[in-house]
Amino acid sequence: MSNARLTPLAASLPSTVPFTGPEELERRRGAPFTARLGANENGFGPSPLALAAMQDANGGIWQYGDPTSHDLRRALAAHWGCEAGHIVVGGGIDGLLCDLVRLTVTAGDNIVTSLGAYPTFNYHVAGFGGQIHTVPYRNDGEDLPALIAKAAETDAKLIYFANPDNPMGSYVPGTEIAAALDALPQGTLLVLDEAYGELAPEDALTGLPMDDPRLIRMRTFSKGYGMAGARIGYAMGHPDLITAFDKVRNHFGLNRAAQAGALAALADTDWLCHIRAEVATSRAALARIGAAHGLTALPSATNFVALDTHRDGTFARALVAGFAAEGIFIRMPFVAPQDRCIRVSCGPARDMALFEEALPRALAHAEASLTATA
Amino acid sequence: MSNARLTPLAASLPSTVPFTGPEELERRRGAPFTARLGANENGFGPSPLALAAMQDANGGIWQYGDPTSHDLRRALAAHWGCEAGHIVVGGGIDGLLCDLVRLTVTAGDNIVTSLGAYPTFNYHVAGFGGQIHTVPYRNDGEDLPALIAKAAETDAKLIYFANPDNPMGSYVPGTEIAAALDALPQGTLLVLDEAYGELAPEDALTGLPMDDPRLIRMRTFSKGYGMAGARIGYAMGHPDLITAFDKVRNHFGLNRAAQAGALAALADTDWLCHIRAEVATSRAALARIGAAHGLTALPSATNFVALDTHRDGTFARALVAGFAAEGIFIRMPFVAPQDRCIRVSCGPARDMALFEEALPRALAHAEASLTATA
Repeated sequence: MSNARLTPLAASLPSTVPFTGPEELERRRGAPFTARLGANENGFGPSPLALAAMQDANGGIWQYGDPTSHDLRRALAAHWGCEAGHIVVGGGIDGLLCDLVRLTVTAGDNIVTSLGAYPTFNYHVAGFGGQIHTVPYRNDGEDLPALIAKAAETDAKLIYFANPDNPMGSYVPGTEIAAALDALPQGTLLVLDEAYGELAPEDALTGLPMDDPRLIRMRTFSKGYGMAGARIGYAMGHPDLITAFDKVRNHFGLNRAAQAGALAALADTDWLCHIRAEVATSRAALARIGAAHGLTALPSATNFVALDTHRDGTFARALVAGFAAEGIFIRMPFVAPQDRCIRVSCGPARDMALFEEALPRALAHAEASLTATA
Repeated sequence: MSNARLTPLAASLPSTVPFTGPEELERRRGAPFTARLGANENGFGPSPLALAAMQDANGGIWQYGDPTSHDLRRALAAHWGCEAGHIVVGGGIDGLLCDLVRLTVTAGDNIVTSLGAYPTFNYHVAGFGGQIHTVPYRNDGEDLPALIAKAAETDAKLIYFANPDNPMGSYVPGTEIAAALDALPQGTLLVLDEAYGELAPEDALTGLPMDDPRLIRMRTFSKGYGMAGARIGYAMGHPDLITAFDKVRNHFGLNRAAQAGALAALADTDWLCHIRAEVATSRAALARIGAAHGLTALPSATNFVALDTHRDGTFARALVAGFAAEGIFIRMPFVAPQDRCIRVSCGPARDMALFEEALPRALAHAEASLTATA
């Protein structure tokens, strides 16, 4: 036993990881994956200008990054037509969610999320002693009115709502969310995770205010901008709330090259257009490949596609294992009935071809493993 | 006002930054610094092999980093002759301190540190509601027996002890620290911040156990390895405590290129030897330059030198401002009597020449500003 006396809360927490990373899965199987389509990474990669900016910034990597992310926040403010004071930059949405939960949630406080939504948010809430209340998906989408009703019922401090949604890929028009703000209980903050925002149809994000006191919006350079490994994202909201992040955030925690890369990525709108086109092509490919084998693609506003197996979670899990056996990393929703689907990230044509080649074998693997255990 | 209901603790915290970064100081003065010698960054830069590894890793920056830092932890274990289970990798010592404080400190818990020691540790403790108890420096060094006595008096959960020390540059032999472990109160963890360890005399670090339940040691790639902007460091200790980090850490929070860079930096022992030699040369230069103008260099086990002005904090502050007016960024200790010194980072010959050129003018500036306000 260590001499460290953990807090009662820390002592009660499991030493678990919300997700097992693909590298760990590769080590377990003793071989690398041939296609990495499980973490909704963007295999089309970052803008060449962003890459060049990161390479260039590495020449000054002996220096700490600017703790205020001054230049990036100003560029983001110009991009969004708001003030820099409406924006805080952090280590991806995961890091920003941690800071937000720390600011608002203490033992016994309630939050509301969808059953089967982003586990890392729940990890942070549990990590600060919060109580998680869930609402089921409705028609494979997050159910905002039900989330709001549950928040009223539980006096929730936060509602987590991903738009577009992960893992199902669905979305709600921004105007619908904006209209719902008036229905929010007093003292409930709507946390809008827009990780996939850059890949969504335009109406998913229009009509949303930048500094409404009832809303905080989170964005990342991990998905549309293809910089997941750089770990940089931002939150936009009311200046009072944004300023509060300075109470707890790790001010010097941001990688210097990531800041430079984000700045360049934001400016390269041509590349983002290119990515959107590539992702649309890949979504169509996944739908076509799935359909040829009886799997139905759900509509996706993201860089991944939920493919409905028309079976159950047991089958989908066996199918994910079948893909792993074929060297292809994918994931799937956690809870029923969404766990009847597998979730496959978009990727370059090479990855789509590997997926197509593996699908019939993975299906056979799944059928065989179920027969064996029946 | 935002709809967010902050926790009582969060509401009580100031939105302050432990340090103002040099970029912000540059914006305020309207011009960049010509020499950046205030943050103990390593201007000699990282190993070319580490730089190449980061550039190479950027090609895969669209992928999240390995959340277990498997390869780096194994390389560190081999380097230290311990098990990977004794090591956790994090976003620099700042990030690791935050996680450690979160694991151990809750409202009303006590910690002990030296008066004038690292403010970011205090920031984290305050951020989790802890009570900070301080012990003054003795002979410009941290006073381990007094820290231990204060811990016994206050039933402290943590003692923060930097070895070598920042901001004074002094150090205590590792064997002395190891011998002091038996004097630690039951339930007090000694947090050894060895940020400058790679630059210290060998006896600063010898004789220290890797997995003693009473000790956690923290290291970084920011200083000796010249990768401050990459944000990567690690902690070593008893496996029970190391595993506990998995309860709260941001598992996918590490930059992928930083992990690759750290792995390469660790292997390039020649470069670290080169850095140690360059730093020794620079320390001697700072001592010589200071002496020529009546400032006395304190012995330094780090990549910075505390130069004693033989005056008081008011004069030293004016001198820091004088250097800023000359375009040179330095810092100084926070509290008396250590604040009679200025703290200057080591750097390449060009930076030393700029410092030498600026010193007489900065001194004149300081004298003039004090006369003006007298």
